[in-house]
Amino acid sequence: MELQDLGEFGLIARIRAAALRSQGRAPVLGIGDDAALIRPRARHDVAISCDAFVEGVHFDFDHESPFIAGRRALAAALSDLAAMGATPIGLTLSLSAPPRAEVARVMGLVRGLLADGARYGSPLLGGNVARSSSLELHLSVLGEVPRGRALRRSGARPGDRLFVSGPLGRSALQRKRGRVTHVPEPRLVLGRSLLRTNRASACIDISDGLLADLGHLCEASGVGARIDVGALPRPRGFAAACRRAGVDAGELLLTGGEDCELLFTARAAPLARQSAPGACPTEIGIVTEAGLELLGGPGRRPPRPGWRHF
Amino acid sequence: MELQDLGEFGLIARIRAAALRSQGRAPVLGIGDDAALIRPRARHDVAISCDAFVEGVHFDFDHESPFIAGRRALAAALSDLAAMGATPIGLTLSLSAPPRAEVARVMGLVRGLLADGARYGSPLLGGNVARSSSLELHLSVLGEVPRGRALRRSGARPGDRLFVSGPLGRSALQRKRGRVTHVPEPRLVLGRSLLRTNRASACIDISDGLLADLGHLCEASGVGARIDVGALPRPRGFAAACRRAGVDAGELLLTGGEDCELLFTARAAPLARQSAPGACPTEIGIVTEAGLELLGGPGRRPPRPGWRHF
Repeated sequence: MELQDLGEFGLIARIRAAALRSQGRAPVLGIGDDAALIRPRARHDVAISCDAFVEGVHFDFDHESPFIAGRRALAAALSDLAAMGATPIGLTLSLSAPPRAEVARVMGLVRGLLADGARYGSPLLGGNVARSSSLELHLSVLGEVPRGRALRRSGARPGDRLFVSGPLGRSALQRKRGRVTHVPEPRLVLGRSLLRTNRASACIDISDGLLADLGHLCEASGVGARIDVGALPRPRGFAAACRRAGVDAGELLLTGGEDCELLFTARAAPLARQSAPGACPTEIGIVTEAGLELLGGPGRRPPRPGWRHF
Repeated sequence: MELQDLGEFGLIARIRAAALRSQGRAPVLGIGDDAALIRPRARHDVAISCDAFVEGVHFDFDHESPFIAGRRALAAALSDLAAMGATPIGLTLSLSAPPRAEVARVMGLVRGLLADGARYGSPLLGGNVARSSSLELHLSVLGEVPRGRALRRSGARPGDRLFVSGPLGRSALQRKRGRVTHVPEPRLVLGRSLLRTNRASACIDISDGLLADLGHLCEASGVGARIDVGALPRPRGFAAACRRAGVDAGELLLTGGEDCELLFTARAAPLARQSAPGACPTEIGIVTEAGLELLGGPGRRPPRPGWRHF
């Protein structure tokens, strides 16, 4: 069945029914009015971030199921909340789709969103559907964070140590290989833990690739960085898998995005495991006054920093 | 210049600079981190709504300037907050665009958003840009509303009077005529006034057309309605303009959307002007037990209720 057979309000009814079956924490007012209502806890700020997931750019049904694509879209969006140390409250979905889109695919995307939304305490609060020539999910995620305590990109100082929350390159490798089955886990538990223990001086999520996002953190903090490429955590068997796929492992580690790992800086000694539940941060370098140095990089040519939409 | 010449981060820098020039009330943290932060007032809920504005569906540069289109996109989004009685806090923009899109057009859309965002106290908090085959603005608007007091679609009871906040059909007529210069005003002042004076039993914004949105209100409230088509407020000279354009005035009044007017129900006597500053509500009918009656409708054939995306 195509969307044009189901109709706009038929689609909305299906999404609403699926959302009602999957909800965790209920909002004050959910799907079905002009706006949704949420009630953040007292003495908390509300964090909001939005993310797009476009067919042919961020996902492709030749390479992954709609359900996996929907779960990946949510993970990417929630990763921005993780980087602030925020706790999810909910999300909205602005969906555009061609009238001839398959209902089963669209609902697969939505079910992926809802499944992980329930898992991470982020119910679907509301949304919009519109006709388009392009199939796109535009997500806004809302979270709450203790007032004035949110992790920022801008607090890194020379001498701080640099950490990543987990292995890099896995999402980029599976996209290169043309079969996407892995959904990364947004580091919400780690982000909250960094906030609570006051350990991180700056934090960002690695969505565009380590080099690109390290560049954003350094720019916001007015600092530089030295990275030990050999220390970058990577999935088990990564080098061999990259060789088989004919791709440069070092370049994937430095420029592959979408792993939902956090890059953060800390003044204190390396984090003990128990201070960072839900992830095992790895020290990868140090914050400097200015510039970017790569120790043991992938070759003469510094790789292009990461994905650019234009 | 095209977007692909400017680059993703070049575009983000331009949007950010334009936003900094136009901001009204400042958020706790605006553009430039993984998420934005807002601080709603104590004892207020946060209202959130999202809306899409797609080239070729919601706007068309053959018929209007990018600046007008951007302003209309924001008005449509804020109208959902008005219908809840909420006060805007800010908005996010998830922009998708083809790499060959003209920077001047994209920035025209953004400047339209920002201009009216500043005017209505809704600064751009953050956003996302992505490559797409389609030029689309996906807006999320955030507002605050006194806890438990938000206007809803679901409170209408048989015997309540039905009102609209202002003239209908103007946006639909100018789209039919192929030249869009008018930007409707979201009824934020009226919405807040209805909330404060406890006058409205139910409220919805008319985005899909009066009949469609009346249907939504009736469904949410479990009631019906009787409308006096002759009483529907219309712009000055509307009948003659419709005749010249060869369109049915009654049908535009009943099915034309995008005027950003509110449809609301009230138990008490008609609202005095002073209880509804910023708009002049007109009584158009009454809430019944069930069904929809049109007195003095446009002919034998009941019009199709309004725009459907699929």
